[in-house]
Formats: sequence, structure tokens, C-alpha cells
Amino acid sequence: MSTVVPPKSPESDPRVKAVFDDIRATRQSDFINNIWRYLAFDADLLERTWDEVKAVMATPSDLDPLTKELLYLSVSIINNCNYCVHSHTAGAKAKGMSQTQHAEVLKIVALASKTNQLATALQVPTDPEFLLEEG
Amino acid sequence: MSTVVPPKSPESDPRVKAVFDDIRATRQSDFINNIWRYLAFDADLLERTWDEVKAVMATPSDLDPLTKELLYLSVSIINNCNYCVHSHTAGAKAKGMSQTQHAEVLKIVALASKTNQLATALQVPTDPEFLLEEG
Amino acid sequence: MSTVVPPKSPESDPRVKAVFDDIRATRQSDFINNIWRYLAFDADLLERTWDEVKAVMATPSDLDPLTKELLYLSVSIINNCNYCVHSHTAGAKAKGMSQTQHAEVLKIVALASKTNQLATALQVPTDPEFLLEEG
Amino acid sequence: MSTVVPPKSPESDPRVKAVFDDIRATRQSDFINNIWRYLAFDADLLERTWDEVKAVMATPSDLDPLTKELLYLSVSIINNCNYCVHSHTAGAKAKGMSQTQHAEVLKIVALASKTNQLATALQVPTDPEFLLEEG
Amino acid sequence: MSTVVPPKSPESDPRVKAVFDDIRATRQSDFINNIWRYLAFDADLLERTWDEVKAVMATPSDLDPLTKELLYLSVSIINNCNYCVHSHTAGAKAKGMSQTQHAEVLKIVALASKTNQLATALQVPTDPEFLLEEG
Amino acid sequence: MSTVVPPKSPESDPRVKAVFDDIRATRQSDFINNIWRYLAFDADLLERTWDEVKAVMATPSDLDPLTKELLYLSVSIINNCNYCVHSHTAGAKAKGMSQTQHAEVLKIVALASKTNQLATALQVPTDPEFLLEEG
Repeated sequence: MSTVVPPKSPESDPRVKAVFDDIRATRQSDFINNIWRYLAFDADLLERTWDEVKAVMATPSDLDPLTKELLYLSVSIINNCNYCVHSHTAGAKAKGMSQTQHAEVLKIVALASKTNQLATALQVPTDPEFLLEEG
Repeated sequence: MSTVVPPKSPESDPRVKAVFDDIRATRQSDFINNIWRYLAFDADLLERTWDEVKAVMATPSDLDPLTKELLYLSVSIINNCNYCVHSHTAGAKAKGMSQTQHAEVLKIVALASKTNQLATALQVPTDPEFLLEEG
Repeated sequence: MSTVVPPKSPESDPRVKAVFDDIRATRQSDFINNIWRYLAFDADLLERTWDEVKAVMATPSDLDPLTKELLYLSVSIINNCNYCVHSHTAGAKAKGMSQTQHAEVLKIVALASKTNQLATALQVPTDPEFLLEEG
Repeated sequence: MSTVVPPKSPESDPRVKAVFDDIRATRQSDFINNIWRYLAFDADLLERTWDEVKAVMATPSDLDPLTKELLYLSVSIINNCNYCVHSHTAGAKAKGMSQTQHAEVLKIVALASKTNQLATALQVPTDPEFLLEEG
Repeated sequence: MSTVVPPKSPESDPRVKAVFDDIRATRQSDFINNIWRYLAFDADLLERTWDEVKAVMATPSDLDPLTKELLYLSVSIINNCNYCVHSHTAGAKAKGMSQTQHAEVLKIVALASKTNQLATALQVPTDPEFLLEEG
Repeated sequence: MSTVVPPKSPESDPRVKAVFDDIRATRQSDFINNIWRYLAFDADLLERTWDEVKAVMATPSDLDPLTKELLYLSVSIINNCNYCVHSHTAGAKAKGMSQTQHAEVLKIVALASKTNQLATALQVPTDPEFLLEEG
């Protein structure tokens, strides 16, 4: 099904175990979803990916957790990653996305794709008003 | 520069004038940016596009205006629409996006693209935990 | 399987029923395909989407119905939407696409993708001959 | 501007000259647009690309020339190839695309992109009715 | 499952048989994978596609076979072609890709996608140092 | 031109200076190209991006430097990042890519895009032969 064989006992590798432990501690959940189990085929790739996901998504910042998850979901839809659409829709629901908000995200993603294509098809020149003064 | 010649006096067409008037009233600004001036080459396309943008983006809803603009911007980046990246970055700044939030949006978009490609490259199977009970 | 639970009795919602009735009347068929059943999780999204599909695709216009369906199919292939590739291939066959025409569409889509990538890789400048006089 | 330096006197290479001669003869025009002048940096790539474009686009077939050009244009929009959007919009106009048809193509491309994203976001399962009997 | 019915006895068509024979001879293997079985629904499309794959991928050239396969795989990931990700991962392994190299390809593809999005989001201007002198 | 104003004296920020110093040392060149100058608008984003680029691209590994650069270039073409196509074509030439190899990379990228679209259009099922035994 996948292009790699995920390790059968991933946590026998101490580097993998450390990442899985940190995922569990950070998310306060025992559930390790498949992307991490498959990335474990290469401990370095796993470590670096989790390090970045934790820093960007699981650290308090100037955007609230639900907004961040909705941005992640929107990118995943446009990049057409089926796994990611499933995992980040579930993630957004877990962070409080209501059904109305879900529908609204879909409306924005669909509308943006539509107007993106119109602007590309028309080759609309950028308004001088959008350009910044060099600092 | 564009693939259509935008009408020289677009508001001489009453349908176009009605849309432009509504854009100005909705945004409380005299500025009509280029996408609308070029869409005016076909009044029906202009009307329908503005109607949808107004309904989705300019109507109070369950997502705040800045979040909606950030979602629009993120989709525009992934769809690689240069015009839209400029216009929606400007739009997000106008709605209060700070420089730190701008950097954060970029980090999320870049990280999501990265993990989207990893999940696709690995062909990770969807966790049963993400699947919904049929209602 | 999906990221939303489609309503079990969608037509108990009068807004959904009105859309489904119009789909059946417009297409002169009792078959409501899944995209509509799933969009029914949000009546507003369903109404707006069908309204646009009907206006663009099911209204007589300056392009014949098969050409329109082939354009829809080609976009769906490039956007890599599996559902849409299936539904619009079926739609094109229903509108008369022969097996030879199907192969021809595939040749054009594949060739265009190929030369699109070549032009991007080479960063070919646009010929002045393609640029329009401003009106 | 480009990533290769197009040859200054491309037709001093007899393989390039033969392709350019065939382009002129096929199109009954002296105009050789930039994509061919840049592809001429590698005669084999030029020959193979023109051979395929001629076979698919310039040979009478079961789709009329305008329909083929509109399919090419639609793919080019979604692949976001600026050069190709310009050249194939010009090509479609040369083959008779009216301003109304141009607007209609844009409506279809934009709508298809929109519903493609909705189907991906919802992960709509393919209707069994769309699946084919194995032959 | 597919959008065409692959021919039941493809090699009863001599043009298909000739292509299949050449695939077997070129690859020194009896295995004909599905893409060829499905492309066989149109002999001309099959012939032209195999001709190009053979010329580009199965002919000794200035890039070694593994590098070529890794490039093909990387493009297939970004284009999000599930079939192609599977077939070209298998192809790269058959040409000697180690597990470490596999992880490394994934790191490069993921990193490139990330910085591609950053450059697009920032609309970074091209350095004059990258531009070529016209020849 | 860009969506951020790059800092006028970026190296007055010690975090930025440290990254720029490391770029110069790693590349043994005084040239700092624009992507780094623009990323400097947010020191954290700059640091993290360079850290990853250095680890993946500038550290000896199981793939040679030219192969890695060609993979980066191919992804950048498909992601349609104009800046990146320019910078990584220049990078590949600096690492020894000949004109013939450049043409060959383009042929592979173009061919892969073509067959990717064919496989998607046909919805070709994955051969069981490509699937892995679970470990």
C-alpha cells in the first residue's frame, strides 16, 4: 500500500522512541497516526519533520491553534494530499471547527481556486497600489 | 500584458457600474483593483464572481475576516497566482496581519507543502481513526 | 471515507430537496451522484454550487455541451481530482465522446502538460506579438 | 530572462532549419514564436516536441481545431504557464474564439477548479455507476 | 476502476503486440505493467508514449539510469500521481536506490516544495546574477 | 515587487549575520542571493530554512551534489516557481550540468508530466507487483 515498509517495532530504535514519546506528551494522547509510523523508516527524516511540526504547530504563537490547523488543511486540499485532508480535517474538528466553519473553509478554498484561475487566465497585472516601498 | 483588453470606460455599462458601486460601498473605498477591471470584459462573469466574493468574504460569518483572508492567501500561494499573492497579502495586512503573523503563515504553508509531499511520496494509508461513521 | 457524513435523508431538508429536484429535472434522470449527496451537508454550499454548475454547464451557450464537458474533464485531470475524472469522463461519454475522441483528449492534455513544463523550465519570454493593444 | 541562451542563428543548424521550415509550412505563416526559438538550444528536443505538436494539434482529427486549442489553453491555465496562457489564448482567437466563448472557457475552468477542490476536500467516494465493466 | 476498459487480449492487435514485445525486450522482463495495458485502448497513444519513454529513459545518455529514475519519481510526487509514485519508486529500487537514498530523495522533494512556496509567497525577484547574456 | 520589504541592513541583526556568514562560508562565495535577503524579514524563518537547506543540500551524502541539484530543479519546475527555476538552473550549471544534461533533464520532466497526466486520466490501478510485503 505504501512505498516503504514501516518498521514493525519502531520504538526499538531509541531515536524513534524519543520522537514518539514527544508526540504523545505534546498531544497528550497515546495515538500515533500513520504518517509518523511510516516516516520512522528513516529516523533522521522523522526527527526533523516532527521537530518542525512541533515548532510551527504545537507552540503558542500569534495565531490561534484552530486558525493554524485551517491553514494547514487548506494547503493540503490544494496540494491534493488525501492522507493530509483526512488528518487535518480530523485535527481541525478536534480543535473545535464547527460544521458551519467546515463548510465556510470549503467555500473559501473553492472560491480562491476559482479566482486564482481567473487571474491566471487573464494574466491580470499587479496593481501599483499593492507594491511596497523598499525599506 | 493581459489576455483581454479591459474596457476603457467600464462604468458606461450599467451592469459593470452596479458591481463597481457595490465594491466601493462594501469596501468603503474608491479603489477598484485590476482583477475587477479586467473581469469587466464580460459583465456576467464580473457579476457572478463579485457576488460570490461578497457572499463568502464580505459577509459576517463564523470565521473572522482576518482568518478568511489568510486562508485565501494560503490557497493563492499554493495555486501560484502571482496577482492573488500580492492582492491577498495586501488584503491581510489591511485586516491587521502583523509581520510576525505573516511569517507564521509562511511557515505553515511551507511546512504543510513539505509534509503533503512526504505523505504522497510514502503513499501513507489513512488511519481508520480518521474515518467517520456513516450518519 | 469522506471528511463529512452525508445526511441520511437529505431531502427532508426542503432546500436540499429543491436542489435535488432541479438536478433531476435538468438532467432528466433520477440519478443524483455523490458530490451532491455530500455537498448536502451544508445546504447553502449545495445551492450555490448547483446554481453555478447549472448556469455554466446546463444552459445553452456559445460552446456545445460536449466541448464544455471536455474542458471540465481536462481541468479535472490536471487538478488531479479522482472523483471528478471519473464523473466527467462518464459525463463526456454520455454527451457523445467516442473512444477516439477520448484518446485525443488525453493526447492533448498530456502534450500540453509537457510543453507547459518546457516553457516554465526555459522561462520563455512572451512574444510581443501575443500582447494586446490596450483598448 | 530565460534559463538557456537561444541560438543567435538557429537556422544555421540544418535540423533546426528543417523544423522551422515545417512550422512555417504547417502554419502558413513566417512567424516562429519564442518557444521554438528557445527549444532550438537542443535540436533533438526541438524536433521531438514539434513532431508531437504537429501530430496532435495540426493534423485533422475527430475534434475540431478550436476545441483542441481550447483544451490546450485550459490545461495551460491550470498548470499556470504564463507563456502558454498567452500563446494559446492568441491561438484560440486565431482559430475563431469569440469574446463570449473566451469568457465561457474561463467560467468553465474556474468552476471546474472550484468543484475539483470541493470533491477533494470532501473526499467524495466514486459512485459505482461511474465504474466500468471490465471488458 | 479505470476510465477505460483495457483490451482483454491486447496482443491480438499487431501494433499493441509490437509495443509489448519491445517493452519486454528492452526491459528484459516478461512483466508488462498496467499503464501499458490501459494505454493499449488506443494503439497510437500507446506507440507514441512508449516510443518517447524508450528514447528518454531506456537509451544510454549523459545521465545515469538511477538519476533519471529519481528525477521521474520526484516529478511524479509533485504531480501527485499515485500510480506513478508506486511504479517509479519500484523502478528506482530496481535500479539500485538504497533506503538511505530513498529518504534523501524525499528530503529534497519536501525541502524544495517548502522553499518553492516561500519564494512564491514572498514574490522574490530574480537576482540579476542568474540572468544569462544573450548569445 | 515582493510582498515583504527586505531589511536594508540585514546584518545589523546578529542572527541574520550569523546565517549570512554561514552561507558565505559553506558556499565559499560572497554572493548572498535574494531568497535569503528576503527571508531575513523574519530571523527565525531565515535560520530554520537555511539550517534545513544546509543539512539536506550542502552536507556530503549518498547522492552526489549534481543529482541533488537536478532533483531540486525538477521539483521547482513542476511547482512552477520562477525564482527557483532560475536559481536552481544556475546552481546546477555551477555544479557541472552540461547543456546536453540540461536538455535531458527537461525531457525527463516533460515526459514524466505527460505520463503522470495519462495515468491520472486513465485512473490506472496500481499493479500488485509494486506493493510491498509488510515487514
